[in-house]
Amino acid sequence: MVDNCIYCKIVKGDLPSTKVFESENFITIKDIHPKVDGHSLVISKKHYGNFMEMPSELYNELLECVKHSVEKLGAKDFNLAVNTGDVAGQIIKHFHLHILPRKPDDKFVFGV
Amino acid sequence: MVDNCIYCKIVKGDLPSTKVFESENFITIKDIHPKVDGHSLVISKKHYGNFMEMPSELYNELLECVKHSVEKLGAKDFNLAVNTGDVAGQIIKHFHLHILPRKPDDKFVFGV
Repeated sequence: MVDNCIYCKIVKGDLPSTKVFESENFITIKDIHPKVDGHSLVISKKHYGNFMEMPSELYNELLECVKHSVEKLGAKDFNLAVNTGDVAGQIIKHFHLHILPRKPDDKFVFGV
Repeated sequence: MVDNCIYCKIVKGDLPSTKVFESENFITIKDIHPKVDGHSLVISKKHYGNFMEMPSELYNELLECVKHSVEKLGAKDFNLAVNTGDVAGQIIKHFHLHILPRKPDDKFVFGV
């Protein structure tokens, strides 16, 4: 747990969140500033600064958690996104993966 | 191999590509219409229509391949993206993950 890390506080329960799914090392919660309906974040329970700092032992569980979270959200079409570093728009320096369920005419522009 | 699938043809070597990295079940190539310098695609060698159709046995190798490809590209800041389904902008229906190395002032807008 890193002091003043908002995601560490959410994992610990010191800040409220709406849980979508949980596994041993990850938690999926609704984004509080959703870009689309159902926008959620898969967050590592331990503090890793970004994707490159996360141990590879967690790779399988991460994507299992993504798959189960997508199913729980009932998303058929969706984008997955990971930002690493300031230049890439990573605001919170604690690993997280965005799940963005998509609907026709949701007006969200993903860029790729 | 699926007839008329452009990524199956690239994997088979029937279409040219610039290889960045390769593992047992994945290949990373440069995108032929790069959104940013170094824009690359991690593609499954077998044809899976999208992320949800890919067997979970490949999850660990996929993210290992992403990590090694990022290192090979020399990317410090980068976005990872997976589009699933028409509404999410998935054009080629063969699993692929975008790696987008980022530079200050590259003017690329990612959306999340």
